Amino acid sequence: MAAAPNPPRHLSDEEFRRAGYALIDWLIDYRARVAELPVMPRVAPGDIRAGLPAAPPQAGESFDAILADLAPLIEPGLMHWQSPNFFGYFPANASPPAILGELLSAGLGQQGMLWQTSPACTELESLVLDWLVSALDLPARFRTDGQGGGVIQDSASSATLCALLAARERASAWQARDDGNPASLVAYCSADAHSSLDKAMSIAGLGRARLRKIATDGAQRLDVAALAQALDEDVAAGLRPFFVCATVGTTAALAIDPVAAIGTLAARHGAWLHVDAAMAGSAALCPELRFVNDGLEQADSYCFNPHKWLLTNFDCDCFYVADREPLLRALSVMPEYLRNAASDSGAAIDYRDWQIPLGRRFRALKLWFVLRSYGIEGLRQFVRHHLALAAELEALIVADEAFELLAPRTLNLLCFACRDDDALSRALLERVNAEGRLFISHTVIDGRYCLRLCIGQTYTTRSHVLAAWQHIRAARAALSGESS
Amino acid sequence: MAAAPNPPRHLSDEEFRRAGYALIDWLIDYRARVAELPVMPRVAPGDIRAGLPAAPPQAGESFDAILADLAPLIEPGLMHWQSPNFFGYFPANASPPAILGELLSAGLGQQGMLWQTSPACTELESLVLDWLVSALDLPARFRTDGQGGGVIQDSASSATLCALLAARERASAWQARDDGNPASLVAYCSADAHSSLDKAMSIAGLGRARLRKIATDGAQRLDVAALAQALDEDVAAGLRPFFVCATVGTTAALAIDPVAAIGTLAARHGAWLHVDAAMAGSAALCPELRFVNDGLEQADSYCFNPHKWLLTNFDCDCFYVADREPLLRALSVMPEYLRNAASDSGAAIDYRDWQIPLGRRFRALKLWFVLRSYGIEGLRQFVRHHLALAAELEALIVADEAFELLAPRTLNLLCFACRDDDALSRALLERVNAEGRLFISHTVIDGRYCLRLCIGQTYTTRSHVLAAWQHIRAARAALSGESS
Repeated sequence: MAAAPNPPRHLSDEEFRRAGYALIDWLIDYRARVAELPVMPRVAPGDIRAGLPAAPPQAGESFDAILADLAPLIEPGLMHWQSPNFFGYFPANASPPAILGELLSAGLGQQGMLWQTSPACTELESLVLDWLVSALDLPARFRTDGQGGGVIQDSASSATLCALLAARERASAWQARDDGNPASLVAYCSADAHSSLDKAMSIAGLGRARLRKIATDGAQRLDVAALAQALDEDVAAGLRPFFVCATVGTTAALAIDPVAAIGTLAARHGAWLHVDAAMAGSAALCPELRFVNDGLEQADSYCFNPHKWLLTNFDCDCFYVADREPLLRALSVMPEYLRNAASDSGAAIDYRDWQIPLGRRFRALKLWFVLRSYGIEGLRQFVRHHLALAAELEALIVADEAFELLAPRTLNLLCFACRDDDALSRALLERVNAEGRLFISHTVIDGRYCLRLCIGQTYTTRSHVLAAWQHIRAARAALSGESS
Repeated sequence: MAAAPNPPRHLSDEEFRRAGYALIDWLIDYRARVAELPVMPRVAPGDIRAGLPAAPPQAGESFDAILADLAPLIEPGLMHWQSPNFFGYFPANASPPAILGELLSAGLGQQGMLWQTSPACTELESLVLDWLVSALDLPARFRTDGQGGGVIQDSASSATLCALLAARERASAWQARDDGNPASLVAYCSADAHSSLDKAMSIAGLGRARLRKIATDGAQRLDVAALAQALDEDVAAGLRPFFVCATVGTTAALAIDPVAAIGTLAARHGAWLHVDAAMAGSAALCPELRFVNDGLEQADSYCFNPHKWLLTNFDCDCFYVADREPLLRALSVMPEYLRNAASDSGAAIDYRDWQIPLGRRFRALKLWFVLRSYGIEGLRQFVRHHLALAAELEALIVADEAFELLAPRTLNLLCFACRDDDALSRALLERVNAEGRLFISHTVIDGRYCLRLCIGQTYTTRSHVLAAWQHIRAARAALSGESS
């Protein structure tokens, strides 16, 4: 038999080293430049693609050639989420240790689907999630060394879906996995809860129509009396409440639902309580902010996103359950080709059974790097810094007659508008974002068009916030034809 | 108002540069060492965790301190998926350009949920997925610039789930998203299809009991006559076939289902045809291997994993649909805070609606780096190299009286056993993996315990394969008390 054809040419060690160093340098340069770049890209659909070849190259190209294309061809199409002037949506804050943790994860190329397929991936993940239980003062039953436990999901959307599936499995007396949805299930959240609730109900085959969106009170929090009434009406109609989601920090206004009261109602109906604290959860690092944990002792599941406000690049959602059995019953599979002694013994966690996909990478590394590099004190300082900036900006908005707050500030999000003029607010958003000096997003609160300014980027400091506010004021003045 | 507290101390540019270079060096050193490390870790559950502090540090630590812990504390718990002696499960092959693409993605910190939130992330992804349509000679209707399109999922499990949800939405005349599962739906796959089918049926609330696992023929392929019979019986019983999954390269034996015949049956019943070619799909890079695409022109959806056999680190599953409407109808949500002009115009792709989670990172970068760095010719050479090695090993196994093949070789997977002695095969697997010179996995084929040896790691060459075979032969001889 003829010898095998030659293997392809890979980058040599020296080529990889040179390319790796060059990319690290590129990222450092990007960090130095990014504050000056227009935050929102100035491209129309199709522009970026039009600048790239329609077909892939037949022969390999040098890494230098690839790197040289980044600035002219890719960069113009980036929204600069890492700019200190990015105040939109939520802060997807990365950091040097997290970036390097992702690099290491890619280089080690682990597959953490089973304990057996990467014990280190599994055990470091359990450990850092338990570290966070103590750092955030979460209920001890979320710890992995007990009956419950934590796992890294890609996003709060996936965590919410997993919570819903676990709740369904429990409500069906462990029949749903095999026999499909039991009849009459109904779920609850506030009208301001995240859209992933709708999506999860659709995916689970329950349908969005079975998700009750409970009215909010005057401060965008779920109205407990309205929830109680909806629960009673559904029960009277022969339906079965099985899942209630409370939100700690809504997407629109960062409102904090009354979790304890919601939990009492959920418990009375035997429903699962999931608490979604995607961005706000990180605040619990600071003892003085632990009001974000109120009521959590009743939660069946909980999630928050270090990829939002804890210096860890996406994806990193920490999802906890108080009892892992319903989750495992909902999601376990064990084909022959994955059987192994550690799984059979029950002594090890197989994280495959805690999530939707089978495969998983070593995401705990980046979280471990962040926790060690900053330390708990450094992370507290990070949160406190942003909160102080948000408080300062709040005072400036309140003091400005041209603007008004549309929702109480709970943490690091400002919801404001041009006073009594939604059209002006809308024009202001477009103008400010088009100018590119900063980026903010919007929502609608009580029918009013609302500007959202969220302070949480890694390198955002007081000067960025004050400059953003000056810029917003000047843009409003220009739009309304006044002198500023 | 007092000025904000100081921000936390981040790594300075020079510290980040030094840490980044050091980590690149660490990875190059790891690559140099990995072939000599025991592939399977020699740890028991709890060992890795026991070596790490029970609580997170209060004060920050230096990156040097973190890096110094990797080799003694983490490495002993790694399964070395990147070793050239890793032949188990599937090859999770990473490569230098892919690793650097992941680094860049982490550093840019993009959120590609909407076109608006990162036009470059969206458009580069569409482009490289279209590149792959031409490079693999897939049906043109999978191209993103037509009615269909491609998207990167984390895994084939998630792709399968999305296909199932799109199929359900179509079968329900667009009612499932809002109203939940229609009655009587039933799905089909072979008994050897991936466990993610079970999981997807559970998640979707249809239940595993509604998944018909069709018998296989003598070569582990779905038996078309048995499928036809099952479809007829279900229809006669008042059930509604809505989804059929054909597998191109089963997990156990890399068997290739008769996709064309399955597609004809699916079409006759109005059922969705999904084709799962997770590992095998990469073979279509080579014109002489395009038999893996047979029948694809009838598929409603298709997926394969560059993170299995195309030098791209996990996660990177390419998922294609022939018509994007059912997928979007199943998964679209549009809360106010995500509304924007590009989405409203319909001119842009919002990949959020093509997947389970909302958030998404810039995964196209690593695929773009791989395609450019190797070129199509380099990637073909990669596949051909492994195939030639697999053919050579096949001949050695067939020529050895102590062993037998348990399934025909289709591509780069060998399924073999000790002749007529399952207990010996089982002992052989344990011994070889415990010795650590290589790693293989197992399955059961037609009731026989089967060793799986898959050739596809980035740096696996002829010498690794021949050494592995010598080692397996010697271990078998030692076990059976013979001299080798």
